[in-house]
Amino acid sequence: MSDFSRPSGRAPDQLRAVRFERGFTRHAEGSVLVSFGDTRVLCTASVENRVPGFLRGKGEGWVTAEYGMLPRATNTRNDREATRGKQGGRTLEIQRLIGRSLRACVDRKALGERTITLDCDVLQADGGTRTAAITGAYVALVDAISALRGRGEIGRDPVHGAIAAISVGVYRGVPVLDLDYAEDSDCDTDMNVVMNDGGGFIEVQGTAEGHAFRRAEMDAMLQLAEAGVAELVAMQRAALAG
Amino acid sequence: MSDFSRPSGRAPDQLRAVRFERGFTRHAEGSVLVSFGDTRVLCTASVENRVPGFLRGKGEGWVTAEYGMLPRATNTRNDREATRGKQGGRTLEIQRLIGRSLRACVDRKALGERTITLDCDVLQADGGTRTAAITGAYVALVDAISALRGRGEIGRDPVHGAIAAISVGVYRGVPVLDLDYAEDSDCDTDMNVVMNDGGGFIEVQGTAEGHAFRRAEMDAMLQLAEAGVAELVAMQRAALAG
Amino acid sequence: MSDFSRPSGRAPDQLRAVRFERGFTRHAEGSVLVSFGDTRVLCTASVENRVPGFLRGKGEGWVTAEYGMLPRATNTRNDREATRGKQGGRTLEIQRLIGRSLRACVDRKALGERTITLDCDVLQADGGTRTAAITGAYVALVDAISALRGRGEIGRDPVHGAIAAISVGVYRGVPVLDLDYAEDSDCDTDMNVVMNDGGGFIEVQGTAEGHAFRRAEMDAMLQLAEAGVAELVAMQRAALAG
Amino acid sequence: MSDFSRPSGRAPDQLRAVRFERGFTRHAEGSVLVSFGDTRVLCTASVENRVPGFLRGKGEGWVTAEYGMLPRATNTRNDREATRGKQGGRTLEIQRLIGRSLRACVDRKALGERTITLDCDVLQADGGTRTAAITGAYVALVDAISALRGRGEIGRDPVHGAIAAISVGVYRGVPVLDLDYAEDSDCDTDMNVVMNDGGGFIEVQGTAEGHAFRRAEMDAMLQLAEAGVAELVAMQRAALAG
Amino acid sequence: MSDFSRPSGRAPDQLRAVRFERGFTRHAEGSVLVSFGDTRVLCTASVENRVPGFLRGKGEGWVTAEYGMLPRATNTRNDREATRGKQGGRTLEIQRLIGRSLRACVDRKALGERTITLDCDVLQADGGTRTAAITGAYVALVDAISALRGRGEIGRDPVHGAIAAISVGVYRGVPVLDLDYAEDSDCDTDMNVVMNDGGGFIEVQGTAEGHAFRRAEMDAMLQLAEAGVAELVAMQRAALAG
Amino acid sequence: MSDFSRPSGRAPDQLRAVRFERGFTRHAEGSVLVSFGDTRVLCTASVENRVPGFLRGKGEGWVTAEYGMLPRATNTRNDREATRGKQGGRTLEIQRLIGRSLRACVDRKALGERTITLDCDVLQADGGTRTAAITGAYVALVDAISALRGRGEIGRDPVHGAIAAISVGVYRGVPVLDLDYAEDSDCDTDMNVVMNDGGGFIEVQGTAEGHAFRRAEMDAMLQLAEAGVAELVAMQRAALAG
Repeated sequence: MSDFSRPSGRAPDQLRAVRFERGFTRHAEGSVLVSFGDTRVLCTASVENRVPGFLRGKGEGWVTAEYGMLPRATNTRNDREATRGKQGGRTLEIQRLIGRSLRACVDRKALGERTITLDCDVLQADGGTRTAAITGAYVALVDAISALRGRGEIGRDPVHGAIAAISVGVYRGVPVLDLDYAEDSDCDTDMNVVMNDGGGFIEVQGTAEGHAFRRAEMDAMLQLAEAGVAELVAMQRAALAG
Repeated sequence: MSDFSRPSGRAPDQLRAVRFERGFTRHAEGSVLVSFGDTRVLCTASVENRVPGFLRGKGEGWVTAEYGMLPRATNTRNDREATRGKQGGRTLEIQRLIGRSLRACVDRKALGERTITLDCDVLQADGGTRTAAITGAYVALVDAISALRGRGEIGRDPVHGAIAAISVGVYRGVPVLDLDYAEDSDCDTDMNVVMNDGGGFIEVQGTAEGHAFRRAEMDAMLQLAEAGVAELVAMQRAALAG
Repeated sequence: MSDFSRPSGRAPDQLRAVRFERGFTRHAEGSVLVSFGDTRVLCTASVENRVPGFLRGKGEGWVTAEYGMLPRATNTRNDREATRGKQGGRTLEIQRLIGRSLRACVDRKALGERTITLDCDVLQADGGTRTAAITGAYVALVDAISALRGRGEIGRDPVHGAIAAISVGVYRGVPVLDLDYAEDSDCDTDMNVVMNDGGGFIEVQGTAEGHAFRRAEMDAMLQLAEAGVAELVAMQRAALAG
Repeated sequence: MSDFSRPSGRAPDQLRAVRFERGFTRHAEGSVLVSFGDTRVLCTASVENRVPGFLRGKGEGWVTAEYGMLPRATNTRNDREATRGKQGGRTLEIQRLIGRSLRACVDRKALGERTITLDCDVLQADGGTRTAAITGAYVALVDAISALRGRGEIGRDPVHGAIAAISVGVYRGVPVLDLDYAEDSDCDTDMNVVMNDGGGFIEVQGTAEGHAFRRAEMDAMLQLAEAGVAELVAMQRAALAG
Repeated sequence: MSDFSRPSGRAPDQLRAVRFERGFTRHAEGSVLVSFGDTRVLCTASVENRVPGFLRGKGEGWVTAEYGMLPRATNTRNDREATRGKQGGRTLEIQRLIGRSLRACVDRKALGERTITLDCDVLQADGGTRTAAITGAYVALVDAISALRGRGEIGRDPVHGAIAAISVGVYRGVPVLDLDYAEDSDCDTDMNVVMNDGGGFIEVQGTAEGHAFRRAEMDAMLQLAEAGVAELVAMQRAALAG
Repeated sequence: MSDFSRPSGRAPDQLRAVRFERGFTRHAEGSVLVSFGDTRVLCTASVENRVPGFLRGKGEGWVTAEYGMLPRATNTRNDREATRGKQGGRTLEIQRLIGRSLRACVDRKALGERTITLDCDVLQADGGTRTAAITGAYVALVDAISALRGRGEIGRDPVHGAIAAISVGVYRGVPVLDLDYAEDSDCDTDMNVVMNDGGGFIEVQGTAEGHAFRRAEMDAMLQLAEAGVAELVAMQRAALAG
């Protein structure tokens, strides 16, 4: 392993530079441009005073997410989903994941009959867009809730704990944290891990890209993820305190 | 745990009755009705002598999957996706998973410029339709390949090893194998595990439904899955020998 | 005509083996797998306590049908309609026919403000799927009504009489009953006839595939259909008594 | 029956006033505004030097039809199908019927690798739009073929015989010819009959709207249709000679 | 400029023959076939006693438009938008323009909670379909309002003034009025101008097709348009008086 | 007019602060974040070595545009067009305008068989998104062409002159330049003007929102636009020189 090196020169357990720009746009109740290295995702949290049909009249709120990628966020241009007339399977899968993940930290009774929509739009992609989106959307969500509370619209804070996400993988035989595109497109295994600030797992999605992975590899990846999420949670806290 | 009991009366590590009816329909190269208890999925493997555009002229084949559920496979009727005009996010997610899983055991060079489409249609649902689909689709795939080889169309067997899948979860605090609907709709954590016959992991998708899950729970679930998949692989082998 | 023989060896006025498997799936109020030879259609009847907008508040019920074919029910795989994003013209035509046919035996006032949806999904096709669907859907409908009456939800039986359907055609110059795929794809004329148990016609849809047909041929075909439907009605009755 | 009268005052076997305005628009190779009383359908025949994929390279042509209704062709405005994003089941059914009917009089080998599209757009509806469309489309088709032959593009006439269509029904117990909207919306049985000029049947589509119809009624309706189509064929001939 | 001539032989400031056939179809409250030379558009005005959601309960009405072109209105056949499953950008642009233009002469309070839909369907196209549509739709609108007032449904006339539209352009260096297809497809600049009878501008949409146009050209075009619209308004008045 | 003031305090002929951030994202050949005050649009220019079907084999290139708005770019959240399954009429209208405008400065022969797609995505909207998009897309286009020329892929510069766009309107009776949202939603007339650097008009689209506008108002607006575009062209030049 002495010869091992990541394309970016990072250590196996090293995150990319992570940055949260709160208030990136001005209309949304929460608006955060999150960067994981060259991956940049604009996460906005929009509050609306209505809930989907299945929740009407139950005194509960809803948190949902939508994900999009600008056509030229990537190295070659992708068709615009609005032009193709539908969201692709990958998009639907990611936005369902973001929604489930964020709902895991929200007390929907305390939220009241409101919907918070987390729009995560990738301005520039370099691997790990879904984990950046979840991590940034959490900050936007907290900002939106703060706005609501600042206006006296809700009392008790509906957000409990924090949620962050990171990818891990096995790259050239070595478990690594936070894969960028160069690694992602050339790794054996890729796993996205969503956790809370108490060290609990919310989502684990691992895929063998090349050969099947062994229990030992999974254990190593989970361990990297635990440390990575802990770092991210600290950064979220710092950003929100800023 | 003395008071713990599953709705079905099964032991925590006990699969439902699993059955493979090969040749359930006569047109497809492979056609298997797989049952995991009351979950019944018709898996057909169709061979076509063409490949998607991105593979044309590369001398490789393709394996893909489509998933559907009859409108009244479930307790209350669901809209037909053909009528709504699109496949939902859950459907797309599942069929992408089935396709990836089965591709993991196929040497696409050996398959040649052919596409095998695995159609997995749920006739009756009682939890675990995606794991039943993967497990049954493997048997249909092997039958289709045998048909091709029997007709002398391909030489070397493109299938290496076996693929099976099972769900695991934490139900009322206890890790259990192969959740049925009653458990699935009331569990804390739900995880689908796809493995090969060598004990390697192909896909792991775990979701905290109620509270976040801990590493110890994940370890227990993975252990149950490993044993469950081993049983399923043996049953596949027996069915194919039948 | 001494040389005439049907591909199946049947007599010109002979039905294929017809079978009704009631309770084929367990969730639907009525669930029948009907077979006309190798044509197998799963017909479920689902009851819902609501009616379409145009009937709201009128104290009447509705009976409607949807038709689908599994992608590999046929000799070569057809695209899944859910994937293509719409139901084709043939599908719409057939499901409209099934709906109209079954409504002809239902007193919608007696049904009350309920919708019964008849889902007819072809698991295996060998000609005559629409006539098998209508004939099987009738049995599923009666089972669903019985379930409602058994639960005391409705009093007076809304079903009056029975409905069955059969195809007739002119194959190599000879009028024949119940065409299978080999005949259907090679006949001069094809006619689907829906009748009730009183010998009345509900729908007659005849198409000249090759040359135009004469009145005498139509008369012969109608006569075959009358006898065929009478047989089917007797089989429905036997199945429901079983 | 002494008291019987039709809303229009017509005799039971009397057609509405039928008119063909050839050359109604100037771009199409054939363009006919056909009127059956107040039902007015613009039928254009467009020739294109290409065939659908399934016919490419076979030296045969194709004849197909599309049907539309202007939103306010009817008494109350209907949504525009282009706005709703799809053609409805009724539209698809009708345009399939028109296409099949007209193909019955065309020798597709003699047509050569050309497609003739018959667009039938209802400007004003008063019952019987599909039979007017078929009857008018025939005239447009002949005009388009004449144009092709006049330009020397094809030799042998690919049109053999003539095709016309008429509706028949049982209105207040009496079999009648060529139902207008007032009759159509209040009749027991409605049947559309497509025939050729040799007295052969191309399509018969009968539907019991109220009670099931008896063989004797069908016989009476078919007899009316035979006479009606003979009249229409004579009018087509006169119009084409004009 | 002595050598200049328009394909039609018209003078630069000369309109094509304009004709309004009121009552062209009988179901709509207003129905006008407008011709600008060979461009013929059927404009119907349909009244419905409901308003779109955003106006519900406000005591105001709505005026909207839809535009369509029959597939063979043009020299070569265009796909039917209902078949393609959506209205194209050009269609949407035109129908939005028609709607905005006609709303400019309607007092929506006086109209009351009604929607008037102006369907403009091009039967034959030879350039200038959108300006013909606006000019004809105005006449249909007035007829529909007259029908409402004749039935005593509304008191005060909600229509104030008149609206008409004309195209102008620069053809071979010369500003011309009312371009036909031959000019339109070969001009440098094309501008559609919607005005009221008081000489006010409602919409101006100019596009440089070849080279950019100068202020002097724009001034000349606007002047032609002013005179052309004045003529059209006089013709509308004459037609409505007829 | 002494009392007149704009919501922003600007003079009637004053642009908002305009800024071009070139290289805002790294994958696209040209990538510019353009700001007109609080309106911020990300314009990327993507080069692909293929042309649409209608240009294949003609030795010419193509320039096209797509426009989108992030769901929360505006004060209240709009549905995502990819979720609704189609682009709205406004979007199509704007992207057609952008495409036509930019094609006006490109020699498509000199471009060769390439397509340049200008994606204009609004991150934050405050009025004038289409004019900002056109003005910014021009800078992105020039950057993309420079990249191509820098790589030696094309010789002669296909861009001739510059294109910029600005809105003008009549706000409370006073002609003003570059309307922001507060003005736009409350003005009498709104006009978008696209011009080149030679003072020629490419597109003029004026709409009376309240009362019809007079020639004198149009003249005043055009004059404001001419001056505004001249300023913008100078800023584009400065940005490109930077």
